[in-house]
Amino acid sequence: MTYRAPVKDMLFAMKELANIDAVAQLPGLEDAGFDTAQAVLEECARLNEEVIAPLNWEGDINPSSFKDGKVSATPGFKEAFQQFSAGGWQGLHHPTDFGGQGLPKLIHAACIEMVNAANTSFALCPLLTDGAIEALLTAGTDEQRATFIPKMIDGTWTGTMNLTEPQAGSDLSMVRSRAEPQPDGTYKIFGTKIYITWGEHDMAENIVHLVLARVTGAPEGVKGISLFIVPKFLVNADGSLGERNDVHCVSIEHKMGIKASPTAVLQYGDNGGAIGTLVGQENRGLEYMFIMMNAARYGVGLQGVAVADRAYQRAVQYARDRVQSRPVDGSLPGAAPIIHHPDVRRMLMTMRSLTEGCRAMSLVAAAAYDASHAHPDAETRKQNQAFYEFMVPLIKGYSTEMSLEVTSLGVQVHGGMGFIEETGAAQHYRDAKILTIYEGTTAIQANDLVGRKTSRDGGATAKAIAGQIEQTEQALVARGSVASLAVAKRLTAARTAFIEVVDFVAGQTRSDPNAVFAGSVNYLMLAGNLMAGWQLGRALLAAEDRLAAGDDVEFMAAKITTARFYADHILTRVPGLRDSVVDGAAGVTDMALEAF
Amino acid sequence: MTYRAPVKDMLFAMKELANIDAVAQLPGLEDAGFDTAQAVLEECARLNEEVIAPLNWEGDINPSSFKDGKVSATPGFKEAFQQFSAGGWQGLHHPTDFGGQGLPKLIHAACIEMVNAANTSFALCPLLTDGAIEALLTAGTDEQRATFIPKMIDGTWTGTMNLTEPQAGSDLSMVRSRAEPQPDGTYKIFGTKIYITWGEHDMAENIVHLVLARVTGAPEGVKGISLFIVPKFLVNADGSLGERNDVHCVSIEHKMGIKASPTAVLQYGDNGGAIGTLVGQENRGLEYMFIMMNAARYGVGLQGVAVADRAYQRAVQYARDRVQSRPVDGSLPGAAPIIHHPDVRRMLMTMRSLTEGCRAMSLVAAAAYDASHAHPDAETRKQNQAFYEFMVPLIKGYSTEMSLEVTSLGVQVHGGMGFIEETGAAQHYRDAKILTIYEGTTAIQANDLVGRKTSRDGGATAKAIAGQIEQTEQALVARGSVASLAVAKRLTAARTAFIEVVDFVAGQTRSDPNAVFAGSVNYLMLAGNLMAGWQLGRALLAAEDRLAAGDDVEFMAAKITTARFYADHILTRVPGLRDSVVDGAAGVTDMALEAF
Repeated sequence: MTYRAPVKDMLFAMKELANIDAVAQLPGLEDAGFDTAQAVLEECARLNEEVIAPLNWEGDINPSSFKDGKVSATPGFKEAFQQFSAGGWQGLHHPTDFGGQGLPKLIHAACIEMVNAANTSFALCPLLTDGAIEALLTAGTDEQRATFIPKMIDGTWTGTMNLTEPQAGSDLSMVRSRAEPQPDGTYKIFGTKIYITWGEHDMAENIVHLVLARVTGAPEGVKGISLFIVPKFLVNADGSLGERNDVHCVSIEHKMGIKASPTAVLQYGDNGGAIGTLVGQENRGLEYMFIMMNAARYGVGLQGVAVADRAYQRAVQYARDRVQSRPVDGSLPGAAPIIHHPDVRRMLMTMRSLTEGCRAMSLVAAAAYDASHAHPDAETRKQNQAFYEFMVPLIKGYSTEMSLEVTSLGVQVHGGMGFIEETGAAQHYRDAKILTIYEGTTAIQANDLVGRKTSRDGGATAKAIAGQIEQTEQALVARGSVASLAVAKRLTAARTAFIEVVDFVAGQTRSDPNAVFAGSVNYLMLAGNLMAGWQLGRALLAAEDRLAAGDDVEFMAAKITTARFYADHILTRVPGLRDSVVDGAAGVTDMALEAF
Repeated sequence: MTYRAPVKDMLFAMKELANIDAVAQLPGLEDAGFDTAQAVLEECARLNEEVIAPLNWEGDINPSSFKDGKVSATPGFKEAFQQFSAGGWQGLHHPTDFGGQGLPKLIHAACIEMVNAANTSFALCPLLTDGAIEALLTAGTDEQRATFIPKMIDGTWTGTMNLTEPQAGSDLSMVRSRAEPQPDGTYKIFGTKIYITWGEHDMAENIVHLVLARVTGAPEGVKGISLFIVPKFLVNADGSLGERNDVHCVSIEHKMGIKASPTAVLQYGDNGGAIGTLVGQENRGLEYMFIMMNAARYGVGLQGVAVADRAYQRAVQYARDRVQSRPVDGSLPGAAPIIHHPDVRRMLMTMRSLTEGCRAMSLVAAAAYDASHAHPDAETRKQNQAFYEFMVPLIKGYSTEMSLEVTSLGVQVHGGMGFIEETGAAQHYRDAKILTIYEGTTAIQANDLVGRKTSRDGGATAKAIAGQIEQTEQALVARGSVASLAVAKRLTAARTAFIEVVDFVAGQTRSDPNAVFAGSVNYLMLAGNLMAGWQLGRALLAAEDRLAAGDDVEFMAAKITTARFYADHILTRVPGLRDSVVDGAAGVTDMALEAF
């Protein structure tokens, strides 16, 4: 078995940190309590461990391939996707009206982590389909929903997001694809889209492309972009497939990682125009796309957690098996499994604590999302919405950046074997590097954090969260154990640094944007670090309670040590980041452009 | 041109920081002054930029290949190696008696950086040959030297280091290859060696393997290991090639990076025994091997600097060319080259300052090496030796770890393009990952730093260096410029943290080895960070002097900004590392092994 889903840790975080009992009191989610979560996660684990994870390495050495306009997925992927769909996993979080399971994001999030840990390339297909479903749920007509959503949920069709063009990456204002209105109410779409994940493949009967384009005569910039459904095969009134649409894959990319996931260049309209239908209103495409994007950003954050966990599990296995050198304390007479060596343990603890911290942060945010949608009280919905939105750039940015560190350590634990591809550790290192880039680079997440999430409300949401963190610190101090006091100390230092940075950002974004944006990624890393550490601090309190009750001693003791490790090895980075944000602009802005 | 050798920055560091004028006063090095350095570096730059660098990508897509026991290098490599050898580059630092140039390590180091930046896979062949030459210079007989060294210097033959076996990686005490003494004074060698860089290839007529093995009846452990010369082809008394020796390549590895460099599994003695001759005395092999190893470790540190610089140059080029989004300060009306965006500049400055800092640290250490060998005063030699030896694990460990960060940022600057292999940024990311592993992992460097370099002398060398750093701080404070004061402040904080850690390490290594070794890598990162920052602080002082004299204004201003950036963004990491070392052991050692 190369992957064991961390069901126990997920359930702990759901119960103790994300308060699944409260989620199960939300209208419409009454059946989604702890027992449901446990049953769903165990079933999900089985599929991912037994069916999807074994295909991960196969996808690396035998990537999806392109020939004559067609893409063939890695052998085995199509059958696995059929099982995934048949099991209802695509519809887990979607409305029962369209064939979904209607479960909360909290449970869905754990399942998303699993499939990504099992096989990131594979998981991207349902991740993108989720985004397409979300966009149609939000802005589609009843007819569009009825036509497309059930078939995406049952896996007959899949979905894509078509944003990027060669000249329009992070900057979507430069999108040039165009849409010409037709007398029958449809549009003809022309243009080139690149980096389209699972943009062409043979795992489903049809592919539902959601495409950004400008209607003839639309304004320049982001306010002139509309969103269209452009299916690979046109759909007849009865839902059956019609003619092949004028959208064609002209090549797929040769990438460093996630090689089984085909990254397509799609050409629209070379033979007269691809037929599309408008989603929502003209010129509001970016707004709808951001709905997909925000869901996708959260999902990419989980990919970071997922790849990190897989790398951790592989490294632990190797560290238990590989025998080399005597322990430095002389506790064993001869060479020992390297897990006995302090630096190997330090690396494993770094991997573990970052992974668990980011998982906890993500699940807590998922519960807030659920409350923001389903809570009966408007003010509570609003607070949860603000919390969730603040967390999204951190989940996306910090969890993916930490996955680079974790997968690098994963290779390092293996020594020379880590550099040999067949070992498997290198694949995680290569796969992870896309996570800090797609669906908005870390800098784009940081811009969001600075602009929409901090500066816009003068830091109010950030400070409200800091207030909650302070309560956790107080509880840790009141607890008075060695570990709780150690964690409280670091958490206080980190929270104080966070507030200073929030004040700096809220105060200077307008007056000195270059200074603030020179520190934006450091702010993101600081905030993400703190939020994950906060959740581990809460986990420590819960674990001490459970330990006192004699529950699951080894697991609870490990939780306490993990929180302690994170505090002394990861939270300790926060004050330095504060210094870089607050004092670091000169080193960035003083450099003459010609001098680089 | 994909690579421009940083000749100007190297010469600045040689003159202002490493004091090449003093090196040129050492007996035997009188001709090796600044003008010589300049001439040599410019010639070296030409070869690397024009001939060797263009083969880097070719080596990635068309790696060395194995068939029927033979390895073919990437097309073009053999011809480039002939030019490299014909130019005298292999012998640059070796004695003129054997056909070398007899130049100081200071100049050699800059040339080693260049060839590694141009093409790391290619550069490994001469790097390993250098190690073999060093070992024979140290411990070989006159006959061995005369037979092997000139032909390695002129490129007719190349050299390898054969340490690792499947069960003996970091732990060489587990070496099992054996050597049976023969009546004629030779030995028959039997065993399997793995990870042998350039262990088989077609670029030279012969390959001189230096092999660790145990003589029949030798003691267990590291004290029973001897070193042997085992040439691929036996060498006749007249120096001509004789029979094929019984050493055979049975496979090469499929690696994540440095793909053009063949990593061989070598089988010794399957057909009766490979004939080897002893180097030096029996059972002292590890000692001799460490001579090669220390030279190689320093060289691997330069590989880190080299790959980082290449990644930096590529990222700057892309950031100048790629147009995307308006500047946040509204300074341009439309989309701008991304180098205008603060976070892109922050990433480039991180890459640049780490690279320049590590380069400066390496060159200063090279000058100390030269003084440790050639200075007429014994006490001066000894002090320089201690300084150099303290720096080697930092140069190896910190420069390679920083190269992971730099090459990751190099991909990040490219956005989605960075993940596409043809862009070239991904190759550096993949290549760099071996640098923290081979020739001793970062943890092995950290063990050396803790044990032999800090604990053994009670921290005396470390504190002597701290004293020198304090002098630099005082000079910075006395200078009183905005930049010098900012750098002084960070340097003082970092140096103070360093001393606390040195006291912790020197005081606890015996009494609580687990606690010290749990922090050993953090100590290494802290110390390396400080040493590189110290050199940039010295560079700032020199640059302000030169600026005051009106010299090369843009270059000197950039030096000042680079030091400032490093201080506020990289040195700021040091206090957090101190906390992790001093307080972080519990989080490492408390975890039950079963709980991982």
